[in-house]
Amino acid sequence: MNDTPRIDPYHTALTDTELQEEVAILRRHVTDRRWERMQQVLNRRSRYIAVAVEDIYQPHNGSAVLRSCDAFGVQDVHIIENRNRYRVNPGVELGTAQWLSMYRYPRPHDSEAGAAAAQTRAAVATLHRQGYRVVATTPHRDDVTLAELDLTMGPVALLFGSEKDGLSEVALDLADEYMRIPMEGFVESLNISVSAAVSLHELAGRLRNGSITWQLRERERNIVLARWLRHSVRHAGAILERERTIVHPG
Amino acid sequence: MNDTPRIDPYHTALTDTELQEEVAILRRHVTDRRWERMQQVLNRRSRYIAVAVEDIYQPHNGSAVLRSCDAFGVQDVHIIENRNRYRVNPGVELGTAQWLSMYRYPRPHDSEAGAAAAQTRAAVATLHRQGYRVVATTPHRDDVTLAELDLTMGPVALLFGSEKDGLSEVALDLADEYMRIPMEGFVESLNISVSAAVSLHELAGRLRNGSITWQLRERERNIVLARWLRHSVRHAGAILERERTIVHPG
Repeated sequence: MNDTPRIDPYHTALTDTELQEEVAILRRHVTDRRWERMQQVLNRRSRYIAVAVEDIYQPHNGSAVLRSCDAFGVQDVHIIENRNRYRVNPGVELGTAQWLSMYRYPRPHDSEAGAAAAQTRAAVATLHRQGYRVVATTPHRDDVTLAELDLTMGPVALLFGSEKDGLSEVALDLADEYMRIPMEGFVESLNISVSAAVSLHELAGRLRNGSITWQLRERERNIVLARWLRHSVRHAGAILERERTIVHPG
Repeated sequence: MNDTPRIDPYHTALTDTELQEEVAILRRHVTDRRWERMQQVLNRRSRYIAVAVEDIYQPHNGSAVLRSCDAFGVQDVHIIENRNRYRVNPGVELGTAQWLSMYRYPRPHDSEAGAAAAQTRAAVATLHRQGYRVVATTPHRDDVTLAELDLTMGPVALLFGSEKDGLSEVALDLADEYMRIPMEGFVESLNISVSAAVSLHELAGRLRNGSITWQLRERERNIVLARWLRHSVRHAGAILERERTIVHPG
């Protein structure tokens, strides 16, 4: 299987100038209030931390993870489907996905047991190419605690496993590091949406109070913004066709 | 409505000596390993932070809250049912309730709209009597952020509202303080189980790294331990009948 592109790869193919024009055009079609809200959220967004979920099958869990990403400013979410189709509970998800950059690695329809972890390999490859340390969130003999995870060593992609079986063998093999959340009780594991939220809250908080540059770069901002505007402006495609002056390739 | 007693009020009626004998007898009926695990968990348990949930109706949420309490060492959980019966999803809850001190305020079968918040009043009264500051977890003009909540001002009971409507008017009226978790995204609220977990993880972490005495006192330890042993030893009641030497009242 090839690495699957993200849901909306369109904007990454545009030049900086094309992106800027697209944003400038669509900006005229949203209210000032909406525009300011987008800027406000964008100022707090980061790709320094990314999230990848493997084979989550309960819609309320997947949806709660998306809401936590939005709430704690994580822009990039990778959805890996080896055995389970990722489904969302709209009542929990509340439309969050449209504000996130979602990378999907869907299960092929004819998937066999042998190829079960192909999507995990593809996701880890994508994350490595993007410069992330891939951190499996699971107890391991080489693990560190959430409090110990050192953010200064480079961008971190947190890999969360499924409700029942945790992370796959392949995910554990391919991970660069391991992290666990210390627990003090009888039950040995946290709910997946809880693990994700606790990790993101802690790490995003540390990031914002530290000295690392975590904000989106200019081009990243414009890619995200163009996507948000496309979602917010009715007939965005037609408007762009009509108003833009730069001729696009293809 | 009167304040409803906790699920297992038996042990709180015993004297210290009676409790000690009960623990000593039942201890002989669990393995050393089990006993040590209980001691280990007990050493990390606290009643300095308590949790109260009002009208949670999705079993997976209620269950995830219980798991987070267990995981982060919170012993006391208050379940308030005004309109919704509290139900648990066993696949998420994993038997956690037996390790917690659960106070229930069940909805009366003949409840009317006017009495809808009687259970909330009862719970807040119980918490105040126990010496807690009741903190409603909701944005409010007098709120502080999670990071700002001052634990040195006394024990804290966190009040979480239902998925759809948040906390009731009565809960907001009766609360002593208000706390919110800062969010950076488009969605305005966090999933209830996520709010609870993030709050408990942060506050319990601060508690353990601070100078407040958060551990259970001797008598509290024995009450909790006696309850755990009762759950762990088969025929605990019959064994106690047979082996104890102190004559119990009643």
